[in-house]
Amino acid sequence: MARVNILIGGPTDQIPVDWETVTGIWIGVDRGSLRLVKAGISPALSLGDFDSIDEEDFQLVQEHSQKVLRVNEHKDDTDTELALKLVQEEFLDAEEVVVYGATGGRMDHLLSNIFAVLQPRFKDLIEKITLIDRQNLITFYHAGNHVIRKQMGYKYLGFVLLTGVTDLNLIDEKYTLDNYSCTYPRAFGSNEFIGNEAHFNFASGIVAAIQSRDLPKV
Amino acid sequence: MARVNILIGGPTDQIPVDWETVTGIWIGVDRGSLRLVKAGISPALSLGDFDSIDEEDFQLVQEHSQKVLRVNEHKDDTDTELALKLVQEEFLDAEEVVVYGATGGRMDHLLSNIFAVLQPRFKDLIEKITLIDRQNLITFYHAGNHVIRKQMGYKYLGFVLLTGVTDLNLIDEKYTLDNYSCTYPRAFGSNEFIGNEAHFNFASGIVAAIQSRDLPKV
Repeated sequence: MARVNILIGGPTDQIPVDWETVTGIWIGVDRGSLRLVKAGISPALSLGDFDSIDEEDFQLVQEHSQKVLRVNEHKDDTDTELALKLVQEEFLDAEEVVVYGATGGRMDHLLSNIFAVLQPRFKDLIEKITLIDRQNLITFYHAGNHVIRKQMGYKYLGFVLLTGVTDLNLIDEKYTLDNYSCTYPRAFGSNEFIGNEAHFNFASGIVAAIQSRDLPKV
Repeated sequence: MARVNILIGGPTDQIPVDWETVTGIWIGVDRGSLRLVKAGISPALSLGDFDSIDEEDFQLVQEHSQKVLRVNEHKDDTDTELALKLVQEEFLDAEEVVVYGATGGRMDHLLSNIFAVLQPRFKDLIEKITLIDRQNLITFYHAGNHVIRKQMGYKYLGFVLLTGVTDLNLIDEKYTLDNYSCTYPRAFGSNEFIGNEAHFNFASGIVAAIQSRDLPKV
Protein backbone atom coordinates (compact mmCIF):
# COMPACT_ATOMS: atom_id res chain seq x y z
CA MET A 1 0.00 0.00 0.00
CA ALA A 2 1.10 3.53 -0.66
CA ARG A 3 0.46 5.18 2.67
CA VAL A 4 0.23 3.95 6.25
CA ASN A 5 -1.16 6.43 8.79
CA ILE A 6 -0.49 6.06 12.51
CA LEU A 7 -2.62 7.76 15.16
CA ILE A 8 -0.86 8.04 18.53
CA GLY A 9 -2.86 8.96 21.63
CA GLY A 10 -1.42 12.49 21.99
CA PRO A 11 -3.44 15.66 22.65
CA THR A 12 -6.22 15.93 20.08
CA ASP A 13 -5.96 19.71 19.82
CA GLN A 14 -2.72 19.28 17.86
CA ILE A 15 -4.18 16.95 15.21
CA PRO A 16 -5.02 18.56 11.84
CA VAL A 17 -8.76 19.02 11.42
CA ASP A 18 -8.87 17.06 8.16
CA TRP A 19 -7.16 13.94 9.51
CA GLU A 20 -10.21 11.72 8.99
CA THR A 21 -10.20 12.25 5.25
CA VAL A 22 -6.62 11.28 4.37
CA THR A 23 -5.91 8.32 2.10
CA GLY A 24 -4.29 5.05 3.14
CA ILE A 25 -4.75 2.55 5.93
CA TRP A 26 -4.65 3.34 9.64
CA ILE A 27 -2.78 1.96 12.63
CA GLY A 28 -4.16 3.13 15.97
CA VAL A 29 -2.11 3.09 19.15
CA ASP A 30 -3.94 2.91 22.50
CA ARG A 31 -6.41 5.78 22.73
CA GLY A 32 -5.64 6.52 19.08
CA SER A 33 -7.40 3.28 18.12
CA LEU A 34 -10.54 4.40 19.92
CA ARG A 35 -10.45 7.75 18.15
CA LEU A 36 -10.22 6.00 14.80
CA VAL A 37 -13.17 3.72 15.55
CA LYS A 38 -15.27 6.61 16.86
CA ALA A 39 -14.51 8.50 13.62
CA GLY A 40 -15.91 5.56 11.66
CA ILE A 41 -12.52 4.32 10.52
CA SER A 42 -11.67 0.64 10.82
CA PRO A 43 -7.99 0.40 11.85
CA ALA A 44 -5.95 -2.17 9.92
CA LEU A 45 -4.19 -2.63 13.24
CA SER A 46 -4.97 -1.46 16.76
CA LEU A 47 -2.12 -1.85 19.21
CA GLY A 48 -1.01 -0.85 22.68
CA ASP A 49 -1.56 -1.85 26.28
CA PHE A 50 -4.97 -0.07 26.17
CA ASP A 51 -4.65 0.91 29.81
CA SER A 52 -5.78 4.43 28.97
CA ILE A 53 -9.25 3.29 27.86
CA ASP A 54 -11.88 1.31 29.76
CA GLU A 55 -13.01 -2.24 28.95
CA GLU A 56 -16.16 -1.10 27.14
CA ASP A 57 -14.17 1.12 24.80
CA PHE A 58 -11.64 -1.67 24.29
CA GLN A 59 -14.50 -3.95 23.16
CA LEU A 60 -15.46 -1.28 20.65
CA VAL A 61 -11.88 -1.18 19.36
CA GLN A 62 -11.86 -4.98 19.09
CA GLU A 63 -15.14 -5.10 17.18
CA HIS A 64 -14.10 -2.51 14.62
CA SER A 65 -10.41 -3.23 14.09
CA GLN A 66 -9.17 -5.59 11.41
CA LYS A 67 -6.49 -6.79 13.86
CA VAL A 68 -5.75 -6.07 17.52
CA LEU A 69 -2.41 -6.49 19.24
CA ARG A 70 -2.56 -6.00 23.00
CA VAL A 71 0.90 -5.73 24.52
CA ASN A 72 2.11 -5.88 28.10
CA GLU A 73 2.04 -2.49 29.79
CA HIS A 74 5.66 -2.86 30.89
CA LYS A 75 6.92 -2.87 27.33
CA ASP A 76 10.36 -1.59 26.39
CA ASP A 77 9.12 0.35 23.38
CA THR A 78 7.20 3.62 23.36
CA ASP A 79 3.90 3.73 21.48
CA THR A 80 5.60 5.28 18.48
CA GLU A 81 8.48 2.80 18.47
CA LEU A 82 6.04 -0.07 18.71
CA ALA A 83 4.02 1.26 15.77
CA LEU A 84 7.14 1.74 13.63
CA LYS A 85 8.27 -1.80 14.47
CA LEU A 86 4.90 -3.14 13.36
CA VAL A 87 5.12 -1.20 10.11
CA GLN A 88 8.46 -2.91 9.45
CA GLU A 89 6.98 -6.30 10.24
CA GLU A 90 3.53 -6.14 8.67
CA PHE A 91 3.45 -3.29 6.15
CA LEU A 92 6.73 -3.76 4.33
CA ASP A 93 5.42 -2.20 1.12
CA ALA A 94 4.47 1.11 2.76
CA GLU A 95 5.84 4.03 0.75
CA GLU A 96 4.84 6.68 3.29
CA VAL A 97 4.40 6.43 7.06
CA VAL A 98 2.50 9.43 8.39
CA VAL A 99 2.28 9.87 12.15
CA TYR A 100 -0.49 11.90 13.80
CA GLY A 101 -0.76 12.74 17.51
CA ALA A 102 2.98 12.55 18.22
CA THR A 103 3.41 16.20 19.20
CA GLY A 104 2.05 18.59 21.79
CA GLY A 105 1.75 18.14 25.50
CA ARG A 106 4.54 16.37 27.31
CA MET A 107 7.97 17.24 26.00
CA ASP A 108 9.46 13.87 26.93
CA HIS A 109 6.96 12.23 24.58
CA LEU A 110 7.51 14.76 21.83
CA LEU A 111 11.31 14.47 21.88
CA SER A 112 11.10 10.71 22.16
CA ASN A 113 8.92 10.65 19.03
CA ILE A 114 11.24 12.92 17.07
CA PHE A 115 14.41 11.13 18.18
CA ALA A 116 12.92 7.67 17.48
CA VAL A 117 14.00 7.94 13.84
CA LEU A 118 17.65 8.14 14.97
CA GLN A 119 17.61 4.57 16.26
CA PRO A 120 19.57 2.32 13.90
CA ARG A 121 16.70 -0.21 13.80
CA PHE A 122 14.50 2.35 11.99
CA LYS A 123 17.16 3.34 9.48
CA ASP A 124 15.20 1.97 6.50
CA LEU A 125 12.07 3.90 7.53
CA ILE A 126 13.54 7.37 8.14
CA GLU A 127 12.87 8.86 4.73
CA LYS A 128 9.34 7.45 4.63
CA ILE A 129 8.24 9.02 7.93
CA THR A 130 6.28 12.28 8.27
CA LEU A 131 5.12 13.70 11.61
CA ILE A 132 2.12 15.99 11.17
CA ASP A 133 0.30 18.36 13.50
CA ARG A 134 -1.72 21.55 12.99
CA GLN A 135 1.32 23.74 12.53
CA ASN A 136 4.10 21.42 11.48
CA LEU A 137 5.03 18.85 8.87
CA ILE A 138 8.29 17.11 9.73
CA THR A 139 10.32 14.87 7.38
CA PHE A 140 13.67 13.15 7.92
CA TYR A 141 16.75 12.61 5.76
CA HIS A 142 19.92 10.55 5.57
CA ALA A 143 23.06 12.05 4.03
CA GLY A 144 22.69 12.70 0.29
CA ASN A 145 20.96 15.02 -2.16
CA HIS A 146 17.37 15.96 -1.39
CA VAL A 147 14.49 18.00 -2.69
CA ILE A 148 11.48 19.10 -0.62
CA ARG A 149 8.25 20.15 -2.28
CA LYS A 150 6.42 23.09 -0.68
CA GLN A 151 3.16 21.95 0.86
CA MET A 152 0.18 24.28 0.60
CA GLY A 153 -0.48 26.44 3.64
CA TYR A 154 2.97 26.31 5.20
CA LYS A 155 5.10 29.44 5.22
CA TYR A 156 8.34 28.46 6.96
CA LEU A 157 10.95 25.82 6.33
CA GLY A 158 13.23 24.86 9.21
CA PHE A 159 16.27 22.61 8.97
CA VAL A 160 17.06 20.69 12.13
CA LEU A 161 20.37 18.86 12.51
CA LEU A 162 19.32 16.00 14.78
CA THR A 163 22.91 14.76 15.06
CA GLY A 164 26.29 16.17 14.20
CA VAL A 165 26.21 16.91 10.47
CA THR A 166 28.92 17.61 7.89
CA ASP A 167 28.88 19.69 4.74
CA LEU A 168 25.28 20.84 4.79
CA ASN A 169 24.35 22.92 1.76
CA LEU A 170 21.06 24.83 1.57
CA ILE A 171 21.09 25.66 -2.08
CA ASP A 172 17.97 27.54 -3.16
CA GLU A 173 16.24 28.53 0.08
CA LYS A 174 15.73 32.12 1.35
CA TYR A 175 18.76 31.71 3.61
CA THR A 176 21.48 29.53 2.13
CA LEU A 177 24.23 27.56 3.84
CA ASP A 178 27.52 26.51 2.30
CA ASN A 179 29.31 23.39 3.56
CA TYR A 180 28.15 23.95 7.11
CA SER A 181 29.30 21.39 9.66
CA CYS A 182 28.39 21.09 13.32
CA THR A 183 29.30 18.45 15.89
CA TYR A 184 26.08 18.78 17.93
CA PRO A 185 22.33 19.06 17.16
CA ARG A 186 21.24 22.47 15.97
CA ALA A 187 18.01 23.89 14.54
CA PHE A 188 17.81 26.59 11.89
CA GLY A 189 14.26 27.89 11.99
CA SER A 190 12.31 30.40 9.93
CA ASN A 191 13.91 29.68 6.58
CA GLU A 192 11.54 29.79 3.59
CA PHE A 193 11.02 28.34 0.13
CA ILE A 194 11.91 30.61 -2.77
CA GLY A 195 10.08 28.50 -5.33
CA ASN A 196 8.02 25.35 -5.07
CA GLU A 197 11.02 23.17 -4.31
CA ALA A 198 13.95 23.43 -1.94
CA HIS A 199 17.19 21.56 -2.65
CA PHE A 200 19.75 20.62 -0.02
CA ASN A 201 22.45 18.05 0.62
CA PHE A 202 24.82 16.94 3.34
CA ALA A 203 27.63 14.41 3.74
CA SER A 204 26.88 12.76 7.09
CA GLY A 205 24.34 12.80 9.93
CA ILE A 206 20.55 12.97 10.05
CA VAL A 207 18.54 16.10 9.26
CA ALA A 208 14.87 16.94 9.76
CA ALA A 209 13.03 19.46 7.60
CA ILE A 210 10.05 21.21 9.19
CA GLN A 211 7.44 23.00 7.14
CA SER A 212 5.48 25.16 9.56
CA ARG A 213 3.05 28.03 9.90
CA ASP A 214 1.99 30.51 12.52
CA LEU A 215 -1.45 30.23 14.05
CA PRO A 216 -3.33 33.40 14.99
CA LYS A 217 -1.90 34.91 18.21
CA VAL A 218 -4.04 34.36 21.29
CA MET B 1 20.41 38.80 41.38
CA ALA B 2 19.23 35.28 42.05
CA ARG B 3 16.84 34.75 39.20
CA VAL B 4 16.46 36.18 35.71
CA ASN B 5 13.22 35.38 33.89
CA ILE B 6 12.95 35.62 30.12
CA LEU B 7 9.62 35.89 28.32
CA ILE B 8 9.82 34.90 24.64
CA GLY B 9 6.96 35.73 22.28
CA GLY B 10 5.69 32.15 21.91
CA PRO B 11 2.05 31.03 22.13
CA THR B 12 0.54 32.32 25.39
CA ASP B 13 -1.58 29.22 25.92
CA GLN B 14 1.59 27.32 26.88
CA ILE B 15 2.70 29.78 29.58
CA PRO B 16 1.97 28.73 33.21
CA VAL B 17 -0.95 30.67 34.65
CA ASP B 18 1.09 31.95 37.61
CA TRP B 19 3.94 33.42 35.55
CA GLU B 20 3.23 37.01 36.63
CA THR B 21 3.91 36.22 40.29
CA VAL B 22 7.39 34.63 40.07
CA THR B 23 10.37 36.26 41.77
CA GLY B 24 13.33 37.86 40.01
CA ILE B 25 13.81 40.35 37.22
CA TRP B 26 12.39 40.05 33.71
CA ILE B 27 13.82 40.23 30.22
CA GLY B 28 11.19 40.52 27.49
CA VAL B 29 11.84 39.56 23.90
CA ASP B 30 9.72 41.17 21.16
CA ARG B 31 6.05 40.53 21.88
CA GLY B 32 7.13 39.12 25.26
CA SER B 33 8.13 42.64 26.33
CA LEU B 34 4.66 43.92 25.56
CA ARG B 35 3.10 41.09 27.56
CA LEU B 36 5.25 41.99 30.54
CA VAL B 37 4.34 45.66 30.38
CA LYS B 38 0.63 44.86 29.98
CA ALA B 39 0.88 42.62 33.07
CA GLY B 40 2.21 45.59 35.04
CA ILE B 41 5.78 44.29 35.09
CA SER B 42 8.65 46.64 34.22
CA PRO B 43 11.20 44.62 32.22
CA ALA B 44 14.83 45.14 33.26
CA LEU B 45 15.51 44.70 29.56
CA SER B 46 13.26 44.64 26.50
CA LEU B 47 14.93 43.41 23.36
CA GLY B 48 14.18 42.28 19.86
CA ASP B 49 13.44 43.71 16.45
CA PHE B 50 9.87 44.48 17.63
CA ASP B 51 8.51 43.87 14.15
CA SER B 52 5.71 41.78 15.59
CA ILE B 53 4.19 44.73 17.49
CA ASP B 54 2.99 48.09 16.17
CA GLU B 55 4.61 51.46 16.92
CA GLU B 56 2.09 52.39 19.60
CA ASP B 57 2.78 49.19 21.53
CA PHE B 58 6.51 49.72 21.07
CA GLN B 59 6.13 53.16 22.69
CA LEU B 60 4.43 51.45 25.62
CA VAL B 61 7.34 49.01 25.91
CA GLN B 62 9.82 51.90 25.79
CA GLU B 63 8.01 53.86 28.50
CA HIS B 64 7.82 50.97 30.94
CA SER B 65 11.13 49.15 30.37
CA GLN B 66 14.24 49.94 32.36
CA LYS B 67 16.28 49.43 29.18
CA VAL B 68 15.38 48.77 25.55
CA LEU B 69 17.62 47.16 22.96
CA ARG B 70 16.20 47.25 19.45
CA VAL B 71 18.15 45.01 17.10
CA ASN B 72 18.18 44.71 13.34
CA GLU B 73 15.55 42.31 12.05
CA HIS B 74 18.12 40.42 9.98
CA LYS B 75 20.00 39.30 13.04
CA ASP B 76 21.96 36.06 13.15
CA ASP B 77 20.65 35.04 16.56
CA THR B 78 17.20 33.74 17.41
CA ASP B 79 15.22 35.53 20.12
CA THR B 80 16.30 32.99 22.68
CA GLU B 81 19.96 33.09 21.67
CA LEU B 82 19.90 36.87 21.82
CA ALA B 83 18.38 36.81 25.31
CA LEU B 84 20.94 34.28 26.57
CA LYS B 85 23.76 36.38 25.11
CA LEU B 86 22.45 39.44 26.95
CA VAL B 87 22.26 37.47 30.20
CA GLN B 88 25.95 36.64 29.76
CA GLU B 89 26.77 40.27 29.06
CA GLU B 90 24.58 42.14 31.51
CA PHE B 91 23.41 39.75 34.24
CA LEU B 92 26.60 37.88 35.07
CA ASP B 93 25.51 37.19 38.64
CA ALA B 94 22.30 35.38 37.64
CA GLU B 95 22.01 32.07 39.48
CA GLU B 96 18.94 30.89 37.58
CA VAL B 97 17.75 31.74 34.06
CA VAL B 98 14.13 30.74 33.58
CA VAL B 99 12.67 30.89 30.08
CA TYR B 100 8.94 31.23 29.45
CA GLY B 101 7.23 31.12 26.05
CA ALA B 102 9.89 28.98 24.35
CA THR B 103 7.65 25.98 23.65
CA GLY B 104 4.48 25.24 21.75
CA GLY B 105 3.53 26.13 18.24
CA ARG B 106 6.20 25.93 15.58
CA MET B 107 8.49 22.97 16.02
CA ASP B 108 11.46 24.73 14.38
CA HIS B 109 11.30 27.35 17.16
CA LEU B 110 10.84 24.78 19.89
CA LEU B 111 13.79 22.63 18.79
CA SER B 112 15.92 25.70 18.20
CA ASN B 113 15.21 26.80 21.79
CA ILE B 114 16.00 23.39 23.27
CA PHE B 115 19.14 22.90 21.16
CA ALA B 116 20.41 26.45 21.90
CA VAL B 117 22.02 25.21 25.12
CA LEU B 118 24.25 22.87 23.09
CA GLN B 119 26.11 25.78 21.52
CA PRO B 120 29.59 26.06 23.04
CA ARG B 121 29.10 29.80 23.66
CA PHE B 122 26.38 29.04 26.22
CA LYS B 123 28.38 26.35 28.02
CA ASP B 124 28.60 28.35 31.26
CA LEU B 125 24.83 28.94 31.29
CA ILE B 126 23.56 25.38 30.66
CA GLU B 127 23.04 24.31 34.25
CA LYS B 128 21.36 27.62 35.16
CA ILE B 129 18.70 27.41 32.45
CA THR B 130 15.14 26.15 32.96
CA LEU B 131 12.49 26.12 30.22
CA ILE B 132 8.98 26.18 31.67
CA ASP B 133 5.54 25.72 30.17
CA ARG B 134 2.21 24.47 31.50
CA GLN B 135 3.17 20.83 31.35
CA ASN B 136 6.94 20.77 31.38
CA LEU B 137 9.93 21.93 33.37
CA ILE B 138 13.18 21.31 31.50
CA THR B 139 16.70 21.54 32.99
CA PHE B 140 20.08 20.80 31.39
CA TYR B 141 23.25 19.10 32.60
CA HIS B 142 26.91 18.68 31.71
CA ALA B 143 28.69 15.42 32.52
CA GLY B 144 29.01 14.79 36.25
CA ASN B 145 26.94 13.83 39.29
CA HIS B 146 23.52 15.43 39.61
CA VAL B 147 20.50 15.55 41.83
CA ILE B 148 17.04 16.79 40.77
CA ARG B 149 14.47 17.84 43.30
CA LYS B 150 10.86 16.88 42.56
CA GLN B 151 8.76 19.95 41.85
CA MET B 152 5.21 19.96 43.13
CA GLY B 153 2.55 19.02 40.61
CA TYR B 154 4.72 17.09 38.16
CA LYS B 155 4.32 13.34 37.88
CA TYR B 156 6.83 12.26 35.26
CA LEU B 157 10.58 12.59 34.90
CA GLY B 158 12.07 12.17 31.43
CA PHE B 159 15.76 11.98 30.63
CA VAL B 160 16.71 13.28 27.19
CA LEU B 161 20.16 12.64 25.76
CA LEU B 162 20.59 15.75 23.59
CA THR B 163 23.91 14.48 22.23
CA GLY B 164 25.74 11.19 22.29
CA VAL B 165 26.21 10.30 25.97
CA THR B 166 28.45 7.79 27.79
CA ASP B 167 27.97 5.91 31.03
CA LEU B 168 24.60 7.30 32.05
CA ASN B 169 23.41 5.97 35.41
CA LEU B 170 19.88 6.55 36.64
CA ILE B 171 20.34 5.54 40.23
CA ASP B 172 17.17 5.94 42.29
CA GLU B 173 14.40 6.58 39.74
CA LYS B 174 11.44 4.26 39.02
CA TYR B 175 13.32 2.89 35.99
CA THR B 176 17.07 2.72 36.48
CA LEU B 177 19.86 2.68 33.89
CA ASP B 178 23.33 1.28 34.41
CA ASN B 179 26.27 2.69 32.42
CA TYR B 180 24.12 3.33 29.35
CA SER B 181 25.88 4.83 26.37
CA CYS B 182 24.42 5.98 23.06
CA THR B 183 26.05 7.69 20.10
CA TYR B 184 22.93 9.66 19.03
CA PRO B 185 20.22 11.72 20.80
CA ARG B 186 17.62 9.64 22.57
CA ALA B 187 14.74 10.44 24.94
CA PHE B 188 13.61 8.23 27.80
CA GLY B 189 10.17 9.47 28.78
CA SER B 190 7.73 8.52 31.53
CA ASN B 191 10.25 7.77 34.24
CA GLU B 192 9.26 8.89 37.77
CA PHE B 193 10.71 10.01 41.06
CA ILE B 194 10.70 7.42 43.84
CA GLY B 195 11.39 9.95 46.58
CA ASN B 196 11.78 13.71 46.56
CA GLU B 197 15.14 13.57 44.83
CA ALA B 198 16.49 11.76 41.80
CA HIS B 199 20.21 11.12 41.42
CA PHE B 200 21.97 10.48 38.12
CA ASN B 201 25.37 10.84 36.53
CA PHE B 202 27.08 10.46 33.18
CA ALA B 203 30.61 10.69 31.80
CA SER B 204 30.20 12.76 28.62
CA GLY B 205 27.57 14.58 26.60
CA ILE B 206 24.65 16.85 27.50
CA VAL B 207 21.43 15.61 29.09
CA ALA B 208 18.09 17.32 29.69
CA ALA B 209 15.73 16.32 32.49
CA ILE B 210 12.04 16.99 31.93
CA GLN B 211 9.56 17.04 34.78
CA SER B 212 6.12 16.84 33.20
CA ARG B 213 2.46 16.18 33.83
CA ASP B 214 -0.59 15.18 31.84
CA LEU B 215 -3.33 17.69 31.25
CA PRO B 216 -6.95 16.51 31.15
CA LYS B 217 -7.69 14.76 27.82
CA VAL B 218 -9.74 16.82 25.39
